[in-house]
Amino acid sequence: MQDTRLDTARIRAARRVIDPIFLDTPLYRCQALEPDLGCTVSIKLETANPVRSFKGRGTELVASLLAENGSRAVVCASAGNLGQALAWSGRGRRLDVTVVASRFAPAAKLDRIRALGARLELVDGDFDMARERAAAIARYAGIRLVEDSLDIETCEGAATIGLELVDTLVDTAPPFDAVLIALGGGAMATGVGHVLKALAPGVEVICVQPLGAPAMTHSWHQRRVVTTDSTDTIADGVAGRCPIPAVLDDLLLVVDDAVLVRETSIIAGMRLLLHHAGLVVEPSAALGIAAILENRDRFAGRHVVTIVCGSNVDVDAYHRWVGAAPLHGV
Amino acid sequence: MQDTRLDTARIRAARRVIDPIFLDTPLYRCQALEPDLGCTVSIKLETANPVRSFKGRGTELVASLLAENGSRAVVCASAGNLGQALAWSGRGRRLDVTVVASRFAPAAKLDRIRALGARLELVDGDFDMARERAAAIARYAGIRLVEDSLDIETCEGAATIGLELVDTLVDTAPPFDAVLIALGGGAMATGVGHVLKALAPGVEVICVQPLGAPAMTHSWHQRRVVTTDSTDTIADGVAGRCPIPAVLDDLLLVVDDAVLVRETSIIAGMRLLLHHAGLVVEPSAALGIAAILENRDRFAGRHVVTIVCGSNVDVDAYHRWVGAAPLHGV
Repeated sequence: MQDTRLDTARIRAARRVIDPIFLDTPLYRCQALEPDLGCTVSIKLETANPVRSFKGRGTELVASLLAENGSRAVVCASAGNLGQALAWSGRGRRLDVTVVASRFAPAAKLDRIRALGARLELVDGDFDMARERAAAIARYAGIRLVEDSLDIETCEGAATIGLELVDTLVDTAPPFDAVLIALGGGAMATGVGHVLKALAPGVEVICVQPLGAPAMTHSWHQRRVVTTDSTDTIADGVAGRCPIPAVLDDLLLVVDDAVLVRETSIIAGMRLLLHHAGLVVEPSAALGIAAILENRDRFAGRHVVTIVCGSNVDVDAYHRWVGAAPLHGV
Repeated sequence: MQDTRLDTARIRAARRVIDPIFLDTPLYRCQALEPDLGCTVSIKLETANPVRSFKGRGTELVASLLAENGSRAVVCASAGNLGQALAWSGRGRRLDVTVVASRFAPAAKLDRIRALGARLELVDGDFDMARERAAAIARYAGIRLVEDSLDIETCEGAATIGLELVDTLVDTAPPFDAVLIALGGGAMATGVGHVLKALAPGVEVICVQPLGAPAMTHSWHQRRVVTTDSTDTIADGVAGRCPIPAVLDDLLLVVDDAVLVRETSIIAGMRLLLHHAGLVVEPSAALGIAAILENRDRFAGRHVVTIVCGSNVDVDAYHRWVGAAPLHGV
């Protein structure tokens, strides 16, 4: 493997900095899902923690470094989960946290950012507009800007998921041979992909993005940054238009494939996770299941891990999407 | 503490026998619940495993001993979760597992017992009728009968939850001062209560049962076995009529209080766990939250752990109970 920006030894060291509440999350086979999916499926569950997403792994590193350096304030743009996690990690270290988000982000995410004590600023646009505004605040106030996926700590934090996956390979029969990773900015795919390619190169690393927010996937396939004018997906956590070049470079080294899925498949995935795994997840966390649904032949008979990366969802919207409808016809 | 049937050293040893997939489950503070409950609340999540309940801890011990002794077959009565767990643990050890359950048990539980390869026999009555039938099968076939809560392994398995709770007390600020435990047959309350009284005697151990299935709670308060003619609760996992004397004896030694809650509170608890924790739970797993809702003054300002013990629920019934209704008026 060519060198990415990541380093496996640093990722191992990161485990000592991250609050254990975010580490060693459940990984378990979910056989009730398998008849519908036609393959062995294991879930890596990243939602059973105080911020209900994997983002705490990265923000723990960011906030810890800032606190060590005597910083007092930090700002980030967020689709909602990074902001919650940074608010949580910052609060414990007496950092003044500002989060910039789209006013169209799920109320559940925005409410929790406020409840965790962060200052929340809303922009009348999408995530990439929030990124611009956060950068402007950082320049104006002279404070640290945390850029998800670009800042190496966000990738290293997510990469600790990869270490945990690899550690189980010895004991798992059959061992998993593919990992499905929701693709947004790319921190999780970069981090987990780096570790898998370094320590378990036989495992296929597959990113999944919605057809309605395909910029990074198009970029990966064309090996150059491709932006889009807009996004149209319920998977708010991964809806970006402007891929970061350095992240794309890493993705090109550690990812085996990047696939796009339809909105109906995302909803079908959420419904399967509810009915057969008892899990309420946000749309981004169902991307992996959606990818299996759309590519049954590719995964038939294999053992696939899907990372359930977040469960911050507005319950009303969730009910609208998933409904009380029976499973038939999924 | 007077001696119970349990032994802390044996419980520690049990951790080495139980498949790690059931151990070291997430324990995390859930602040989003706290405004509604008026106290600090942490969740011990026992649902992120292949059988979606804590019962695997006990069945791993049972099945492991049976396999060591060369046994080939085992039978149990189950409200649904023990049967699933015994089927899972038995399958890995090539045991022939028979589960006897009520035909009124949730279809989700019955389907999973069958899917895990156990023979399922249904009785046209409730859990206590299933117990009688399972005992008859054991006598007739000359095979081992597993009796939940009476068989010490079922209590020792559940007790490992207590060890995990105690281990976190050092690092938790503020430390928890009460643990709420769903009360059915009593295995979980006996096991967790034993460990807490042995290792953290300052922590209050409180059992919670539905008003519609109050036999063990009445027994505890009257210090003698009290049976009821019927049960009437949606909390199918804890709906027993005939407490086991030896289990009551232990409960009298390790439990500080046993409270009863209304069905409406159980549903309100399920709804709060969905809206504020993103957790779909079966009714029995919401008993702790229900107890806080009914006893706000008692818990005000304290740090309470509630064990979310199972998530095996029929989704249609869940929707009927929890609905898409807004949270106001909970």
